Amino acid sequence: MKLIAPQWIAPVEPAATVLHDHAVAIEGERIVAVLPAQQARQAWPDAAVTELPGHLLVPGFVNLHTHVPMTLLRGAGDDLPLERWLRERIWPLEAALISPEFVADGAVLACAEMLLGGVTCFSDMYFYPEEVARAALDMGMRAAVGIIVIEFGSPYGSGAAEYIRKGLELRDQLRDEPRIRFTLAPHAPYTVSDDSFRRVASLAAELAMPVQCHVHETLTEISDSLAQHGKRPLQRLADLGLLGPDFIAIHAVHLDDADLALLARQGAVVAHCPHSNLKLASGIAPTARMRAAGIPVGIGTDGAASNNRLDLLAEARTASLLAKGSSGDATAWPAHETLHAMTLAGARALGLGDQLGSITPGKQADLVAIDLSEARTLPVFEPVAQLVYGAGSDQITAVWVAGKVVVHERQLAGQQAVSRLGEVVARTRLWHNRIVETLPAGLRLSGA
Amino acid sequence: MKLIAPQWIAPVEPAATVLHDHAVAIEGERIVAVLPAQQARQAWPDAAVTELPGHLLVPGFVNLHTHVPMTLLRGAGDDLPLERWLRERIWPLEAALISPEFVADGAVLACAEMLLGGVTCFSDMYFYPEEVARAALDMGMRAAVGIIVIEFGSPYGSGAAEYIRKGLELRDQLRDEPRIRFTLAPHAPYTVSDDSFRRVASLAAELAMPVQCHVHETLTEISDSLAQHGKRPLQRLADLGLLGPDFIAIHAVHLDDADLALLARQGAVVAHCPHSNLKLASGIAPTARMRAAGIPVGIGTDGAASNNRLDLLAEARTASLLAKGSSGDATAWPAHETLHAMTLAGARALGLGDQLGSITPGKQADLVAIDLSEARTLPVFEPVAQLVYGAGSDQITAVWVAGKVVVHERQLAGQQAVSRLGEVVARTRLWHNRIVETLPAGLRLSGA
Repeated sequence: MKLIAPQWIAPVEPAATVLHDHAVAIEGERIVAVLPAQQARQAWPDAAVTELPGHLLVPGFVNLHTHVPMTLLRGAGDDLPLERWLRERIWPLEAALISPEFVADGAVLACAEMLLGGVTCFSDMYFYPEEVARAALDMGMRAAVGIIVIEFGSPYGSGAAEYIRKGLELRDQLRDEPRIRFTLAPHAPYTVSDDSFRRVASLAAELAMPVQCHVHETLTEISDSLAQHGKRPLQRLADLGLLGPDFIAIHAVHLDDADLALLARQGAVVAHCPHSNLKLASGIAPTARMRAAGIPVGIGTDGAASNNRLDLLAEARTASLLAKGSSGDATAWPAHETLHAMTLAGARALGLGDQLGSITPGKQADLVAIDLSEARTLPVFEPVAQLVYGAGSDQITAVWVAGKVVVHERQLAGQQAVSRLGEVVARTRLWHNRIVETLPAGLRLSGA
Repeated sequence: MKLIAPQWIAPVEPAATVLHDHAVAIEGERIVAVLPAQQARQAWPDAAVTELPGHLLVPGFVNLHTHVPMTLLRGAGDDLPLERWLRERIWPLEAALISPEFVADGAVLACAEMLLGGVTCFSDMYFYPEEVARAALDMGMRAAVGIIVIEFGSPYGSGAAEYIRKGLELRDQLRDEPRIRFTLAPHAPYTVSDDSFRRVASLAAELAMPVQCHVHETLTEISDSLAQHGKRPLQRLADLGLLGPDFIAIHAVHLDDADLALLARQGAVVAHCPHSNLKLASGIAPTARMRAAGIPVGIGTDGAASNNRLDLLAEARTASLLAKGSSGDATAWPAHETLHAMTLAGARALGLGDQLGSITPGKQADLVAIDLSEARTLPVFEPVAQLVYGAGSDQITAVWVAGKVVVHERQLAGQQAVSRLGEVVARTRLWHNRIVETLPAGLRLSGA
């Protein structure tokens, strides 16, 4: 039994609430109560108390879209147009490098960065999902691991059918791991056939799994679909039975009125990745209109090759500011709703809304403490606004996953996490050299 | 005599250069050489050497637009439309609070935040500029202090004429302070009369001072000017003789083709403040078009009441990403040119391009060291891209102003700076309470 007693708690449920001088009572991996701190001390006089003066406590952040192994390609393709980024850098590098070791090491780097930034759960899409799951478990995090579906072969497998088979086997193996869940992850409308999409739809219904898919990321994707299929990608997915409350539309940058109405009618969720959309010049997603249409919007960082950070707080701040700046409405996406998007909206999208995403008795104790007492966040009028607009993720001093301390005094706390990260950091120079040597001479990166 | 030997140096001049295993030699306040580290050790065998493995060294950042005292109002008006933000929060609070103490304390908080984030010089606009200058000197920074010009009275003075007189007196008093410079700071086209603008233009010419002015921040400002003056604000300023290479157009969010051509022809500079423009829903400045037209663009944070951070690195990252995302060109505003905007472009705008803004022999030793060896910025292919797209300002471990260490191991190093900050932090709760009590009951802020 333990108590966490911060200056403020923003529980997310009930909405837009800030509790002063309250405590969270935790037993094992669960939250058992949220109550005035003095009452908590009286109720559990023997409980260990973590005092956090000047801190705000919020639910663990959910990164609703990333490709964790791509941390090893961070900075390997900056300032290039999307086509050249993919054709000259990302695809040739991935073709040469993808292996269980690459995925494992990249995933460990990503988990370290995310945990220190308050992310306790992430939704991933990549090859060798078993290595992503293993890294998340070793590092003490939760993951929703994607069962990748894409037509082309890779060292991981020959194509969609084999990827699905391997993914489902992995899901069976990890059935008893409470920190690992699965999604079906068809890559994108332009890389997945109608047949494979139909198979995904039927598996999703049979196994009650969320489906995530990159969609309407660029205008080219939409015009190609119109040329090839006679319809926009979202309409094609709807016709194939993919859309619904378990569908996560990743990016969704270019949406016309019919697209917005379709998503809203189907109850689908958007995974908004503003930094990636800006960096690759995909555009600015109409999040104010999505939200006005009642479409749930969660936030993702995308992979580190197109961001280049896995900092969900920075991502959320940009999401909120961009919604205001691009809609002309300074009240769009206010701070409390931004915190909701970073937590409960992401958890619900992954089918975990009953377990994660708010500081509510009965839920898992996934928690983040942010120190707002530094000069750069003083004075504090509204702690949640100060978190979203003012604070940096480096002001996160402590993080808990399932009641266990995973970040303490701004450092990874788990012994296994520290040792896994140390091994990977030591190997990063070797990955760097292999990546540089893999590129043709004219495209070589510097930085060694 | 001392040497700084980081893993990489990005000197900004020559452009787009990264030096490996070089050292910067510093004598007193000036850079005397930039040369291979081994050669430097041979040339000055007795010099104190600061080794910085895994670090990138860059010039000190120049925050080209801020209102430092407004840190005390950080978070006092979030998620409100611009009009209500001004009329219900900022103006009533300022009317009640502005005093030398308010300005001094807010400025100290701001200087601490900026120094820790690598800002070595800032351009300010506020009342009681003597307090801003004093805070900058005490904290060990440089400042270009604005001589505020605005028609309405305040506790600081009765109006434009008195503000100018007081500002010029202060400039005379501080003539021998090498770390303080002055600009003329007419507030905005809608708060300054033609007569005052003419006076500013004549003083600027006579005293060779830069002029900074908020301009084309909102569409309302432009339509009001068309109604009142029959011309757009920039054209009015041009007709009054304000534009030229010493003119800093703050914000410049809404520019048509004629505005762009006018700024380019006059050689004026833009101070781009993307977070403030987004947060207040002013819009997205067309920086890709400005840059294509040859208009120099520096970067500012604006005040903490509309940002809410004074983090120039975060601001620059958003500037670069927003240029790409809003222009549809992923190669817009690449990393090296972003670093240039944060340093040399800002220095030149303030008339300090011969002294600051690049790591060049003869210039002042204003330097920033960033640790790129953390998990979240590994591996490093292109250090400048890693700085702009990947790193957080909390990875800044050391900062020098005029050859003096002002940040050491991520903490303020100056004894006076530490003690000034300590006093102000202790008073912040009092400011918080005064601010909360100043607002009418219905508008009260929480957070206490």
